[in-house]
Amino acid sequence: MELEFLEWLTEKLPAEETQAVLEDDAASIVWGDRGELVVTTDAITDDVDFHLADVTPAQVGHKALGVNLSDLAAMAAEPVAAFVSLVLPEHPVDGPLGPRTTLQLAQQIYEGILPLAEQFGVAIAGGDTNVWDHPLAISITALGRAGPRGPLRRSGAQPGDELLVTGALGGSLLGRHLAVEPRVSEARLLREQYALHAGIDISDGLALDASRLAAASGCGVEIDVLRVPISDAAKTLAGETGRSPLDHALGDGEDFELLAAAPPEAAAAILADQPLDVPVTRIGWLTAEPGLHQRDAQGVRRPLAATGFRH
Amino acid sequence: MELEFLEWLTEKLPAEETQAVLEDDAASIVWGDRGELVVTTDAITDDVDFHLADVTPAQVGHKALGVNLSDLAAMAAEPVAAFVSLVLPEHPVDGPLGPRTTLQLAQQIYEGILPLAEQFGVAIAGGDTNVWDHPLAISITALGRAGPRGPLRRSGAQPGDELLVTGALGGSLLGRHLAVEPRVSEARLLREQYALHAGIDISDGLALDASRLAAASGCGVEIDVLRVPISDAAKTLAGETGRSPLDHALGDGEDFELLAAAPPEAAAAILADQPLDVPVTRIGWLTAEPGLHQRDAQGVRRPLAATGFRH
Repeated sequence: MELEFLEWLTEKLPAEETQAVLEDDAASIVWGDRGELVVTTDAITDDVDFHLADVTPAQVGHKALGVNLSDLAAMAAEPVAAFVSLVLPEHPVDGPLGPRTTLQLAQQIYEGILPLAEQFGVAIAGGDTNVWDHPLAISITALGRAGPRGPLRRSGAQPGDELLVTGALGGSLLGRHLAVEPRVSEARLLREQYALHAGIDISDGLALDASRLAAASGCGVEIDVLRVPISDAAKTLAGETGRSPLDHALGDGEDFELLAAAPPEAAAAILADQPLDVPVTRIGWLTAEPGLHQRDAQGVRRPLAATGFRH
Repeated sequence: MELEFLEWLTEKLPAEETQAVLEDDAASIVWGDRGELVVTTDAITDDVDFHLADVTPAQVGHKALGVNLSDLAAMAAEPVAAFVSLVLPEHPVDGPLGPRTTLQLAQQIYEGILPLAEQFGVAIAGGDTNVWDHPLAISITALGRAGPRGPLRRSGAQPGDELLVTGALGGSLLGRHLAVEPRVSEARLLREQYALHAGIDISDGLALDASRLAAASGCGVEIDVLRVPISDAAKTLAGETGRSPLDHALGDGEDFELLAAAPPEAAAAILADQPLDVPVTRIGWLTAEPGLHQRDAQGVRRPLAATGFRH
């Protein structure tokens, strides 16, 4: 539905507005001499992105801001301010710690938002608070500032670029999907110190987001499955689901790691320097031929399904 | 609940962040040489701000953007871009024109957003589309640019200022609450051509919003009830409700007219010039004594209840 909707919207919007809406994690607006303004908006809702009956409101607040900061990270932007729109249930469901009023729910959500905002230097500069007789929805808009090299886009990758990823992937359902650690400082450091060509955050799954980065750049991408860093959570979850840990790493989504395309010399420097607190791994390369392929465990090149979460 | 929540939030936020959250219609952020950035966010929801079963989705889309543009108008800012976060029902209720799919609903909402965006030169620069098994919620964040004199705030009024209002008030329930006409060009013209001290848009009712402007300025305000411009809709609605047209004009809210405080000489010039396509009326004055008062129909000064819509 979202894809079809976005295609329809593209036809309706002036051409100069469509790239941000369709292609990137955030919009960028040239705004004077203080650097390009980068803006992203993301909503999360009860029953879809979390289950309010099973988690603390602070976890929900953390996630609501965290997914937006991850979108700013994807653009290698410095977070500046966030605007929080709460749509609160008049009769909140009981949580793991018992019943709560609407006011308590709002406060507890902010107890997850505020520490993350402080950690990343984000001013909570405004918001809107609504109450209705339906479940919780939170929409946050985050403003950031692009660095001296400008926003990192999805569309700059070239055939021959290496595909790099931070951290380890898969199994976010076991906790990481809530405890988002946006790769803000990591993205900014990589952007400013190395000649990255393109970037995206992994929100919907490695396979799907890699194929999006490649498509936005007019390339294809090939993933060497033996190199994909698999998280402990993916291994644990695989024990429960019967799927392989690699399947989870390729398709789970909500890893909120950074996926970047860099020319070979920049990629080699990053891999040698390992300049981040998390490992950076080379997991594939961009190709002239469009589409998503894998180099499988036997070293054979074959198509890879763009599994992942489609909204 | 919102008031108590905002008081709690004020305690939690750094002091420099609280003014925008608590006092103004929008936040302003100094951002380089292109002028101050003004940002507002407002959500509207089914069953609270409209009834999706009774209105067209285009009306809902128009209102969702319109209330945000009205907040930018309150700050006398020029709209630049909007970010639209849709939370769509998986199974939409039938509308006045029959059943619809989620995709059709999203498209029809945009058929209300896009013409208003075009009219005011607003780029739809991004958004997020979510689907869930609950009613429709729309949150929009709008970015604007303050004019050369900076954003018009609520807090600049002084005792002795005249209280001015655009248009006519009351009875918005009969249609105007949906067909928002944000006073963007009117506010910018008044701000740049006359020495306004403070401004606010009437979203929650004349009495309540006038008392907010006064309180933010550390003043009181007195409304001369015989001078309040009463809309035809207020008179029609009064025939149905048995309340007086004045009651509706004082308390209905969602007029989306501009309420401004100006020193006597500037106010006199505006009233003589009548520079807008809508009338500007002097309806009262700011006082040193705090609180909200009326000059009643007999010319007697007495307290006025700050009626209006409290979230």
